[in-house]
Amino acid sequence: MRFIVGTGPGGQGVYLVEGQKAWNLTALDSKVGHDLMGLISGAADLSELVARKDEGASYDLSAITPELPVAAPGKIICLGLNYVDHIKEGGYDVPTYPALFMRSMTSMIPAGAPMVRPSCSEQLDYEAELMVIIGKGGRHISEASALDHVFGYTLFNDGSVREYQRKTHQWTPGKNFDGTGPVGPVVVTPDELPTGAEGLKIESRVGSEILQSATTSDMLWSVARTISTISEYSTLEPGDYLAMGTPPGVGHAKTPQRWLRPGEVVEVEIEGIGICANPIVAEEDVRATEAAE
Amino acid sequence: MRFIVGTGPGGQGVYLVEGQKAWNLTALDSKVGHDLMGLISGAADLSELVARKDEGASYDLSAITPELPVAAPGKIICLGLNYVDHIKEGGYDVPTYPALFMRSMTSMIPAGAPMVRPSCSEQLDYEAELMVIIGKGGRHISEASALDHVFGYTLFNDGSVREYQRKTHQWTPGKNFDGTGPVGPVVVTPDELPTGAEGLKIESRVGSEILQSATTSDMLWSVARTISTISEYSTLEPGDYLAMGTPPGVGHAKTPQRWLRPGEVVEVEIEGIGICANPIVAEEDVRATEAAE
Repeated sequence: MRFIVGTGPGGQGVYLVEGQKAWNLTALDSKVGHDLMGLISGAADLSELVARKDEGASYDLSAITPELPVAAPGKIICLGLNYVDHIKEGGYDVPTYPALFMRSMTSMIPAGAPMVRPSCSEQLDYEAELMVIIGKGGRHISEASALDHVFGYTLFNDGSVREYQRKTHQWTPGKNFDGTGPVGPVVVTPDELPTGAEGLKIESRVGSEILQSATTSDMLWSVARTISTISEYSTLEPGDYLAMGTPPGVGHAKTPQRWLRPGEVVEVEIEGIGICANPIVAEEDVRATEAAE
Repeated sequence: MRFIVGTGPGGQGVYLVEGQKAWNLTALDSKVGHDLMGLISGAADLSELVARKDEGASYDLSAITPELPVAAPGKIICLGLNYVDHIKEGGYDVPTYPALFMRSMTSMIPAGAPMVRPSCSEQLDYEAELMVIIGKGGRHISEASALDHVFGYTLFNDGSVREYQRKTHQWTPGKNFDGTGPVGPVVVTPDELPTGAEGLKIESRVGSEILQSATTSDMLWSVARTISTISEYSTLEPGDYLAMGTPPGVGHAKTPQRWLRPGEVVEVEIEGIGICANPIVAEEDVRATEAAE
């Protein structure tokens, strides 16, 4: 199944998506709630809702403004170096353990929302990534059972302000600028994709300019191995986000370097999941707009 | 003023603390809520509540089991290297920008709760730290106005599993083991302490063994400068935790190395704030207890 969280002519809620049509499950049953947590937690009976979806109207998917699939996750854990050719372009050694960092929700935005180039730096970079949304939580999860803990897969652009990422050895600042991490719009359940979402083409683009193009099979740490590895130290909770790292082709490794510029629209696409497209806006312009409102 | 969040003979809630006595503000006004967020957000009128505290009973502070001061903060940002002598003992260069990382709430526990030594490593280390709780949120906060954004100060033990902290250059795993980050118990408002909580003695101990002993005046980045620096990239939100780094004397830098062992009680003390004491428990024993319950 495919879901989008957002607001449209059918109201705010969780929509079931089939092709270009969408049905508001929240309007059918308020227990679904305002983001995916109602379905993840089992508060609402999904199969029952899907069976009676036509009790409500269907809407054009394009009429829905996406919101965050999970609005208040316990944590967002990201893999830094998970594609060999991206590791080489960054000048790092291939690690024997995943390079893990965290993002906060203040950095995250829905698909479609303005992605903010900060006033203090021109080095806003894109990173196309597969994003996992945890369903069933747990600790000490075996690699063999790890995929049972996935609720679904979506798209992520791990927007990075490079000069702040490398101010020290800890990447936190450059990975946590406000409004730099688009996620969504559509969340796809595992049954619709290859096991572990492997073998899918992954790309980032600005217009016709292809910035990154690879396959998720090139990930060093599979989704299953990553879940197992993280759960050795931390309890994964329902709704946690897990970003799987980016393939080669990021802007800071290109010659000349290729930063995102205000006025551009950056797209992340993964085969079978969809496209996450966001316009780049200068922070000065965002603040001017906010002041005028 | 001084507060403790916890459960005691007066019920669960936010208690006002004076000396060894405590009054349950939540019992006086439900808008105070179950943690400090009601006071931080201004949902409850603090001065009015304090004036009529004796409408309720007073309780012994020692009868209250501490809970987390803020149960679900937006983020927990930690400074890694903020005391020169601790930087040297770790083999790092003095940075020109703070080394920032994040913890998730799954790693955090209240004062008094068991601090868990994981099954996979014996290298559980203590780090005595000053913890800031953000009151008023904001972005692009000037250093001059930064202290206006502090709700209060408390204690933190930034428990670290060293071999996992150094698996890669990103410290996330070693800083995020379940049950390794005690915080609390008492939160002190800024008016009760020197400006920026500077000049306070900070110690960690196991019994009579003094592990770390320094003063918060040795911090490279002051509280004000840290708030200003972080808010350049990220919106600080009410209730966010900000851990100010640890002085020298951590276990991994001692000869021989001095790890925390099950059965010990580790204490963090900062002058004018209080003591955060936690027993060390082996993960195997925690899990056996959970299975028996």
